Amino acid sequence: MTQASIITIGDELLIGQVIDTNSAWMAQQLNIAGIKVLRRVAVGDAWDEIWKALDEESKHADIILITGGLGPTADDITKPLLNQYFNGKLVIDEVALQNVKTIFEKVLNRPMIESNLKQAEVPDTCTVIQNKRGTAPGMWFEKDGKVFVSMPGVPYEMKGMMEEVISKLSTHFIFPHITHRTLLTTGIGESFLSEYIKQFESNLPKHIKLAYLPNYGMVRLRLTSVGFDHIAIEKEIQQYFDTLQQEVNNWLVTNMDEPMEQVTGKLLASKNKKMCTAESCTGGYIAHLITSIPGSSAFYDGSVVSYSYKAKEDLLHVSKETLEIKGAVSEEVVTQMAKGALATIQSDYVIAVSGILGPGGGLPDKPVGTVWIAVGNKNKIETHKLYFRFDRERNTQLTATNALNLLRKFILADTDTVA
Amino acid sequence: MTQASIITIGDELLIGQVIDTNSAWMAQQLNIAGIKVLRRVAVGDAWDEIWKALDEESKHADIILITGGLGPTADDITKPLLNQYFNGKLVIDEVALQNVKTIFEKVLNRPMIESNLKQAEVPDTCTVIQNKRGTAPGMWFEKDGKVFVSMPGVPYEMKGMMEEVISKLSTHFIFPHITHRTLLTTGIGESFLSEYIKQFESNLPKHIKLAYLPNYGMVRLRLTSVGFDHIAIEKEIQQYFDTLQQEVNNWLVTNMDEPMEQVTGKLLASKNKKMCTAESCTGGYIAHLITSIPGSSAFYDGSVVSYSYKAKEDLLHVSKETLEIKGAVSEEVVTQMAKGALATIQSDYVIAVSGILGPGGGLPDKPVGTVWIAVGNKNKIETHKLYFRFDRERNTQLTATNALNLLRKFILADTDTVA
Repeated sequence: MTQASIITIGDELLIGQVIDTNSAWMAQQLNIAGIKVLRRVAVGDAWDEIWKALDEESKHADIILITGGLGPTADDITKPLLNQYFNGKLVIDEVALQNVKTIFEKVLNRPMIESNLKQAEVPDTCTVIQNKRGTAPGMWFEKDGKVFVSMPGVPYEMKGMMEEVISKLSTHFIFPHITHRTLLTTGIGESFLSEYIKQFESNLPKHIKLAYLPNYGMVRLRLTSVGFDHIAIEKEIQQYFDTLQQEVNNWLVTNMDEPMEQVTGKLLASKNKKMCTAESCTGGYIAHLITSIPGSSAFYDGSVVSYSYKAKEDLLHVSKETLEIKGAVSEEVVTQMAKGALATIQSDYVIAVSGILGPGGGLPDKPVGTVWIAVGNKNKIETHKLYFRFDRERNTQLTATNALNLLRKFILADTDTVA
Repeated sequence: MTQASIITIGDELLIGQVIDTNSAWMAQQLNIAGIKVLRRVAVGDAWDEIWKALDEESKHADIILITGGLGPTADDITKPLLNQYFNGKLVIDEVALQNVKTIFEKVLNRPMIESNLKQAEVPDTCTVIQNKRGTAPGMWFEKDGKVFVSMPGVPYEMKGMMEEVISKLSTHFIFPHITHRTLLTTGIGESFLSEYIKQFESNLPKHIKLAYLPNYGMVRLRLTSVGFDHIAIEKEIQQYFDTLQQEVNNWLVTNMDEPMEQVTGKLLASKNKKMCTAESCTGGYIAHLITSIPGSSAFYDGSVVSYSYKAKEDLLHVSKETLEIKGAVSEEVVTQMAKGALATIQSDYVIAVSGILGPGGGLPDKPVGTVWIAVGNKNKIETHKLYFRFDRERNTQLTATNALNLLRKFILADTDTVA
């Protein structure tokens, strides 16, 4: 089976200054095209390390995708290195040059300097992959039956090239069909789930792999199958996936690989209903998750992020007295926040949250991690007290996911009652 | 110099289902301790690949940190593999066993099954690093002068172990001092900046490295130095950093490695002022960025995320007529949003944004990427029309960062006038 390695280049990856999102995205695209990613390697802007990585990864893999180090400054050494690695000499690519000129004239609207023109230079041993979103061209090399493709490290520019890269790869190699099925469960731990579906797992044929992806209170299960008979592979995995869904039905949230905000959003949209949010401790994160979904305006009106007492009073009509007596993190306040948001925005459903996510702010009776969540509609507000024991970032994520799940369950119960 | 490699294990990393945030965080911690990370490698849950990665990385590096594959289910093979790799046999670790029992009884509050108890098994050839945040113990192995440390892939659990790991490493090796200085510029492109500080760059001694980290309209510059004389290294890099700051002073935003929301937040806090936001297209993302900073309640009141027309009218008193005539993405509406937020929340400063971030929603006179930003206070509202040409996610980030920068400049100008 044809296999790929991804090499990402940049010191910033090795000192942890940036998180590498490129290789996850590239891996997804390769996977969809039937190309298995064997390894991902990150190396610094260091000649010997990049050279060694090219040697090593081409021993492992047939396809080596490289990002980073193509900028116009002195620390960018990928291009001269590739030029030497593939025994070329640097020449101006006319199409790339025209592209650089156009970008400076029309998009950036400023004059060019020498180093910008140099962006259009490429080794004469490569085929150029044009960069429509930036100045650094991509480069395609072949050596001993292996393909090496170098792309810029800027995610938006790299993403703009991948379609052409994958289409070129597909004419060079024959790829099998890789297919996945993913479902999401809540309310059962990884080890219990594994015990519960032991029989199912042991009955799986060898070419279908089951993976557990636990994420604090939620477990994703993923089936993966690979083969050359597209139709047979799809049919077979679907049968196993149907069985798996039945087995875990008690805890099943969705049978797609989608985040909780999408599950709740789709449920709302299917009922032609809209929701709003009132957020204290999560500070707009729930709103951000929901509005990250294109088209979310179909089911989402907006949010009041009431970080201060004042904002809770002014925007959500929370009573000053309740705030003073019960404190912002209380059942009473979160209920008033939910009612206040519904009264002002008049959506069908509401989520309100107030909690202490850390690192500071804990109280003897309300330790860090205490969160009150209210979900409901104009007829009924339901409250839940939850406790998370993680850091600020993780507590924020958990609060958001749990709140969206609680609203999902409320809507399902609500609709059942109506029906 | 002692060098480290990080191996992350899991099929989910190779199909792009999750983004690897662990290795960036680990790299940061190692760096602070003076340990240079040479490479980062991700491999799947496959016996041969993990084995090969251990062989290869221990050729490159002295320290090999491994995360992932320690769970209780069948796809987790790291522990049996390490047991074989280091010629051990699995034995129960009593402290780890007690920890597993405690977590199930006190934290999870549910009974254990066989596979949970197995979590307390470790190879007898390792030293156990106890996991206070989960059930899978860490394992420390030594072989031919190299150190291998295996930790769980769950970020919160891994993070809880790193302090002990680094402290143990520091007794095994002597590390040099690694130091960085980072500053942020806006308003000048990477190539122009590079041309501008050419002289400075060519005068740098060989052991000080300058890196450019461009990020659409902002460029971070980072100086890195390594050496054994802590004091001399710090003194020298600071001198170069002072010079660099003077050279780029026209475009300098901050001389620390901090995000824009922190820069603006610190400025507000230093003046004892607070801000609020009114967000349409960014859907709570600006609020989320700000509230991700612990202690942000000192300078932040809250946000109105007015995703629908209705929410703009009800919460921000935007006129229905203006919305109908000018549309939500207009100078008039964003100005009214800013004034509405200030009137209701009564903060000192405000940011309001309304735009079309894509992928859909573009109009002939307002293409995707058009964003109106208003910043100001009760005396003056300033508006800016910006245009971003990226995808939804990137456009959202750019809108947020630019809005925060525009408010920063407004505050500086505002204070100058007052003074």
